[in-house]
Amino acid sequence: MRNEFALIDAIVEGLGDRATGDWVSVGPGDDAAVIKATPGLAQVASIDTLLPDVHFPAAAPAQLIGYRALMVSFSDLAAMRAAPRYCLVSLSMDETQGAAWVASLACGMADAARELGVYVCGGNLTRGPLNIAVSVHGEVEHQHLLRRSEGQPGQQLSVTGVLGAAAACVRTGQMLPVDPKALTPLQHAYYRPQARFDVSAMVQAASAGLDISDGLSQDLAHLCAASGCGAALQSLSIPIGAGATLEDALFGGDDYELLVASNEALPGAYIIGVLTAEPGLTLDGAPFAAKGFDHFGNDQ
Amino acid sequence: MRNEFALIDAIVEGLGDRATGDWVSVGPGDDAAVIKATPGLAQVASIDTLLPDVHFPAAAPAQLIGYRALMVSFSDLAAMRAAPRYCLVSLSMDETQGAAWVASLACGMADAARELGVYVCGGNLTRGPLNIAVSVHGEVEHQHLLRRSEGQPGQQLSVTGVLGAAAACVRTGQMLPVDPKALTPLQHAYYRPQARFDVSAMVQAASAGLDISDGLSQDLAHLCAASGCGAALQSLSIPIGAGATLEDALFGGDDYELLVASNEALPGAYIIGVLTAEPGLTLDGAPFAAKGFDHFGNDQ
Repeated sequence: MRNEFALIDAIVEGLGDRATGDWVSVGPGDDAAVIKATPGLAQVASIDTLLPDVHFPAAAPAQLIGYRALMVSFSDLAAMRAAPRYCLVSLSMDETQGAAWVASLACGMADAARELGVYVCGGNLTRGPLNIAVSVHGEVEHQHLLRRSEGQPGQQLSVTGVLGAAAACVRTGQMLPVDPKALTPLQHAYYRPQARFDVSAMVQAASAGLDISDGLSQDLAHLCAASGCGAALQSLSIPIGAGATLEDALFGGDDYELLVASNEALPGAYIIGVLTAEPGLTLDGAPFAAKGFDHFGNDQ
Repeated sequence: MRNEFALIDAIVEGLGDRATGDWVSVGPGDDAAVIKATPGLAQVASIDTLLPDVHFPAAAPAQLIGYRALMVSFSDLAAMRAAPRYCLVSLSMDETQGAAWVASLACGMADAARELGVYVCGGNLTRGPLNIAVSVHGEVEHQHLLRRSEGQPGQQLSVTGVLGAAAACVRTGQMLPVDPKALTPLQHAYYRPQARFDVSAMVQAASAGLDISDGLSQDLAHLCAASGCGAALQSLSIPIGAGATLEDALFGGDDYELLVASNEALPGAYIIGVLTAEPGLTLDGAPFAAKGFDHFGNDQ
């Protein structure tokens, strides 16, 4: 295996035009990256880690892993209604992955970075069990922030797209084998999630929101907890992806659509229920328990 | 083991007053943290990963691990002559570590954050092999940045403190057992490194610089490569910590002092040599090869 600095060179080469540019004044190669902030905007920052056979199949093509790692990490900024700007990647890997693998991972990250208009302007490489940590950074006008805690009883609940297809891909064991050039629709949902920066007009009138990463029911429970209310869902109103089930949508995860609360109907969004003053969740009038991905739960 | 969200609560509790404050307008609990940027300053960002039995002994007290993880990560910002502001931590851990361990880790991080005047305003928790990824963030006036690439032949090389004590701690097997309340001097060097934000006056006149994390010789080679020059060192001028050897200082690592190039002597810094037009390193006039920590090298 080539040495650390040769591997870093392979990564930077794989990133191509996404390593530096525009608002990045110092990219990879110094002790830290330097980024110009837009005057008057707040900085928004989040960090995620993706692990093999938890967040992606270890045997998946590295290009798909890289694409997915960046998109799902940036989704947290879309959930704040921020504009994405740059990210940093800290990669731990061992002999299982080689220079070709890491170059392919970087190419996949560059694909996602190009679609999002962002840069991967810094990172770190260590030898250890495969682990991809991504910190993502964006900007927003403070009054434009979409918080989890601003929901009010009586507000409509909406989602920005169909749910459950990525979970159906996992449930039906269709993640592997996979050909990056010929993804099935369910594989596309899993490997090519979209951080929904494109729906800012759709969710402009929303008061509260987050992205659905752990399943609709669990993320809705987070929104309700932060806003101090409950929610009533109508099962027939929940938009379910082709090949997916209501269970996939409610408990599956990996959707990365936005779930928002608003006083008025949002153009193009699916209304799925309402926030209630009573705590707890109901589905078609019957109480139900939130359930989704819990890394430390015993029932997963 | 408690579930993911209970563990996150334990971490936020351990962070105490360091989870949010001052320039952090949204701390832990939403999809992302929100930070006010200082008008006119550039953002500086870096990411590091610390692994058990690579960057710290797995059996070390979690409080020392947390302190060290934050300090060594922020050192990259001191190396850019930036002011530290906040960080994000992505933690992967398994059943080996429990809620008490993670709370203690967070307390150690809070200790370091308090000394640095920063906040740990966001993070992520996943179940997997122990891995601590820390993204660190600061601000700087663009013209005040200390780059690796601005060294010139003829400039003096200086370091901001004594070297080799942390490496001597590792070499002599004194990392364990360790009592956080009664660290030996070598243990103090290893477990309580200082990110040198306090020497900005000392290095004000420096043209180029970085922090010494991988050993003086290897980091000097990085500075030379970036600046397109070589360097001549005098062994008698290199300040060696008590209990350490010249080898520890040259090839050991974990010092986190700054290595800078300047046209004039810097008050309080140790002059150790000079940048040369000829590439390559010499020690007392004889060529020598840089050697230090390479995660993917075969000779470590």
